[in-house]
Amino acid sequence: MAVGEFELIQQYFHREAGGEGVVLGIGDDCALLQVPEGKQLAVSMDTLIADVHFPANADPGLIAERALRVNLSDLAAMGAEPLWFTLALSLPEADEHWLDSFSEGLFAAAHRYDCTLVGGDTTRGPLSITIQVHGALTPGKALLRGNASPGDRIFVTGKLGDGAAALAALEHRFEVQEEHVQYFADQYYRPTPRLKEGQRLKSFASAALDISDGLLADLGHICEQSLVGAEVAVECLPISEPLAFYGDQCPALDWALCGGDDYELCFTVPEKNLSSVKALISMGELVATEIGEIVSGSQVLCKNFGEVYEPPHSGYQHFEP
Amino acid sequence: MAVGEFELIQQYFHREAGGEGVVLGIGDDCALLQVPEGKQLAVSMDTLIADVHFPANADPGLIAERALRVNLSDLAAMGAEPLWFTLALSLPEADEHWLDSFSEGLFAAAHRYDCTLVGGDTTRGPLSITIQVHGALTPGKALLRGNASPGDRIFVTGKLGDGAAALAALEHRFEVQEEHVQYFADQYYRPTPRLKEGQRLKSFASAALDISDGLLADLGHICEQSLVGAEVAVECLPISEPLAFYGDQCPALDWALCGGDDYELCFTVPEKNLSSVKALISMGELVATEIGEIVSGSQVLCKNFGEVYEPPHSGYQHFEP
Repeated sequence: MAVGEFELIQQYFHREAGGEGVVLGIGDDCALLQVPEGKQLAVSMDTLIADVHFPANADPGLIAERALRVNLSDLAAMGAEPLWFTLALSLPEADEHWLDSFSEGLFAAAHRYDCTLVGGDTTRGPLSITIQVHGALTPGKALLRGNASPGDRIFVTGKLGDGAAALAALEHRFEVQEEHVQYFADQYYRPTPRLKEGQRLKSFASAALDISDGLLADLGHICEQSLVGAEVAVECLPISEPLAFYGDQCPALDWALCGGDDYELCFTVPEKNLSSVKALISMGELVATEIGEIVSGSQVLCKNFGEVYEPPHSGYQHFEP
Repeated sequence: MAVGEFELIQQYFHREAGGEGVVLGIGDDCALLQVPEGKQLAVSMDTLIADVHFPANADPGLIAERALRVNLSDLAAMGAEPLWFTLALSLPEADEHWLDSFSEGLFAAAHRYDCTLVGGDTTRGPLSITIQVHGALTPGKALLRGNASPGDRIFVTGKLGDGAAALAALEHRFEVQEEHVQYFADQYYRPTPRLKEGQRLKSFASAALDISDGLLADLGHICEQSLVGAEVAVECLPISEPLAFYGDQCPALDWALCGGDDYELCFTVPEKNLSSVKALISMGELVATEIGEIVSGSQVLCKNFGEVYEPPHSGYQHFEP
């Protein structure tokens, strides 16, 4: 059974929300929002397109979870606290089962990360999802890309390479055993936006971003904007147990370096804050691994136990140069 | 010559902006924005999809102008003042001529309406444009849809029907003379967001919205949310001279009632403010026409010189029920 555009919004996306600062939510020409007193607004927008960013026939609830989580990852990378999001959903047809599942996944992630849907647009067209997230930040406290200095140590949260492994598994380029199927599917569709970590790091890190295009490409962005180089000790890269299990059957190291889709934070820590960050890590309050050092110059160099290591390529771009 | 994703953003969309309240623009994980002191934020998001909302082979500069202008129209309808916008652009390929023209049109409209591009996303995929606009509003001063009362008079700004006529002309369903081609193309691609009018009306109107789906459909939204009905005097509908010129060769009246794409404001004025609004109109400070009255009930009824008039259909929906 088909539904009309206005009924669709009403039925699937118009939930009584009452999130913090929502003066007026879905249903008028604009949403009206009150940014918390004394805070700045952090906004980021990401589009996910069928068969570019996810398989078109994927579980709609998982597509929605991924769409919101990868957007929230950008707030995490600035150290911002989630407030609201908007959704532009383009759909070939108004399929109720699809919408049911999609909206369930969307609101599950929204609820988990305390981010309220306040508006958007539904249109008929090729399947794609654009989300804009809005977060709050104390002025002067954002984690930027441009403040790394030579001597700063480079860290990453969590594990690297699972995103690329998961995509390879979904695309049947990488065969995983039954017991690991769910693990990798979760890494792809339900990445964890490192919001707590980002907020924690605001006092200690000199630069940070989230790893969406691959560690080397994203670390390259820190280097460009900070006018520095970097040395990565590839033997230190944190690899998950499930991925390590397939270590000799897949390019785990290259996935960790270049794979993308990990949505972990890569951040740099100046010498003076190093003991604080290491203390957080040893107390279990921050899951992060030191993987290298910022150097002068402009290159990102990889070494494996001291020997120069040449990775295969340098990260995903939508329009290859 | 193809360009990479990051070069594309740098080359076409990264202009030194320095708009009001832009703490950090394009280039990091998030933009950082400072909402003006004492103001609320009004946000709205609209997607335009090739061959749904514009011909895929249209002039890219005009596509961009239309995309930003129709979004700004939502700010106008709330009485908000434009601040910033974000752009999610999905493109089949990174064609430099297309991008040149698109970005020129985009920044022309942005400059004209003093709205700064602060971020977004470029992806490879079917051609579509999603824009989110951000505006500022004094708390309690927004023009909402839900406050119309029986006895309020109904007004529209500008002229109606040109949007539908323009689309028909572009699609060769309506033949216009050489001298009118530019006029109608402008109505379609460069509609005027009624920002000044919306800000002016905040003190006088009880309800307002912008006419994107057609007068009757949009007036229906005011009625639903205000729990009222409406009577429209179709003989009073303001028709432009160029459209009136083709009066007997096209369904001008039905286009004005149901056509959509006009982006004029429809607003209601309580008796007590009627003389103020009429004074603004007679002094030439507001271009608007009285077209009917809010009544009790829930129906939108059309009359032509007092006789009930049945319009052909009731407005555009992306997913027909």
